[in-house]
Amino acid sequence: MTLDQTLLQACSRLGLKVPSPSKPVGVYRPMVVSGNFAYLSGQLSKDADGKLMVGKVGKDLTVEEGKKAAQLAALQATSLIHGEVGLDRVEQVVRLVGFVQSAENFYGQSDVINGASEFIVEILGEKGRHARTSIGVVSLPLNAAVELELTLRLR
Amino acid sequence: MTLDQTLLQACSRLGLKVPSPSKPVGVYRPMVVSGNFAYLSGQLSKDADGKLMVGKVGKDLTVEEGKKAAQLAALQATSLIHGEVGLDRVEQVVRLVGFVQSAENFYGQSDVINGASEFIVEILGEKGRHARTSIGVVSLPLNAAVELELTLRLR
Amino acid sequence: MTLDQTLLQACSRLGLKVPSPSKPVGVYRPMVVSGNFAYLSGQLSKDADGKLMVGKVGKDLTVEEGKKAAQLAALQATSLIHGEVGLDRVEQVVRLVGFVQSAENFYGQSDVINGASEFIVEILGEKGRHARTSIGVVSLPLNAAVELELTLRLR
Repeated sequence: MTLDQTLLQACSRLGLKVPSPSKPVGVYRPMVVSGNFAYLSGQLSKDADGKLMVGKVGKDLTVEEGKKAAQLAALQATSLIHGEVGLDRVEQVVRLVGFVQSAENFYGQSDVINGASEFIVEILGEKGRHARTSIGVVSLPLNAAVELELTLRLR
Repeated sequence: MTLDQTLLQACSRLGLKVPSPSKPVGVYRPMVVSGNFAYLSGQLSKDADGKLMVGKVGKDLTVEEGKKAAQLAALQATSLIHGEVGLDRVEQVVRLVGFVQSAENFYGQSDVINGASEFIVEILGEKGRHARTSIGVVSLPLNAAVELELTLRLR
Repeated sequence: MTLDQTLLQACSRLGLKVPSPSKPVGVYRPMVVSGNFAYLSGQLSKDADGKLMVGKVGKDLTVEEGKKAAQLAALQATSLIHGEVGLDRVEQVVRLVGFVQSAENFYGQSDVINGASEFIVEILGEKGRHARTSIGVVSLPLNAAVELELTLRLR
């Protein structure tokens, strides 16, 4: 079974639709491949129908809801890779930065971003196990709860 | 015409002076070249005379003013590349992260960072078309409205 | 003298204990090595006993305290490199992003992150001199005052 099939199966099991990659809302690219590296544009917490999970975690959303938002953003990321180069070309997800739209006194960003890391490792296995930085920020585009930035090594 | 000349012409047309690269205010480097990659230090929304565009977008500044701030930060970035290695050595701007100093309820970071993306693509064409992440943050050094982080692939 | 010995000596002189690397609190890795690059997970302002420096700089902590927090996070980072690959394998610290948990009206992030840059350059010399981005954010995991993200070129 290819990793791309793994993605489809996992989504089916989780009741998630595989989204079409988001179109950039400006003169940038969803993903740049250069040498052995691929750089993804920021992926928001959005489902396959384009519906965003919005709000600040710790105020409008619980940790569990934030985790779900992080999973959706990770699904956006993996779907983008699936559509652009195919998941089987990934040698390693080397780096993930997770930005969580956070209440001023919310400090559970690691718990929230686990929702993204767990999804990516479920699909890609060891190749998905990344270095990670979790950050709480005051606001994100379109009021999204979570935004992810990923860098990949390709084979 | 070289890309470095394109920068000078675009600035002249836009009424912008090409800034001298900012000096680091610490023991770091404005730009590190390593292998085929170049990493730029954070570039602030500052004009050629060193005057910063300050304030939080959505509170002290409008989206249009934020976009102008992003353009200034992109001008700082391109001027730095121009001064350090020359724009013609850029193979691809692979990655841009745009941090927008934002009011708590401002969600238009993508619109603001378009001011940077559009300037970079105007100067570098397809080579300037990057993967992008836009983030809203509570505060930036010196109260700058925008800060940009770029990674480049060099030829 | 190896760089790893330099780290031990500097810590001894500064009265700092060399920490054991933090365990990830999720399915990610403390550091990913891929090709000639190494990517570190976010390093928090934590001492060798695991005690975090917490609070927002400009409100709960002074600039000097923030600088000390940045030094601790840099000590975490260098100790991690020391433990994973050895500091002598570092060809260049190419990139450092410093996130400072900040009061809304605190704009001295560069001063704070100098505490990290100075420590890294003290240990690694020119190889430690990085491109740098300093950002103020509303909150960080576990209420940490500072979080650092580093990318290295290895020999």
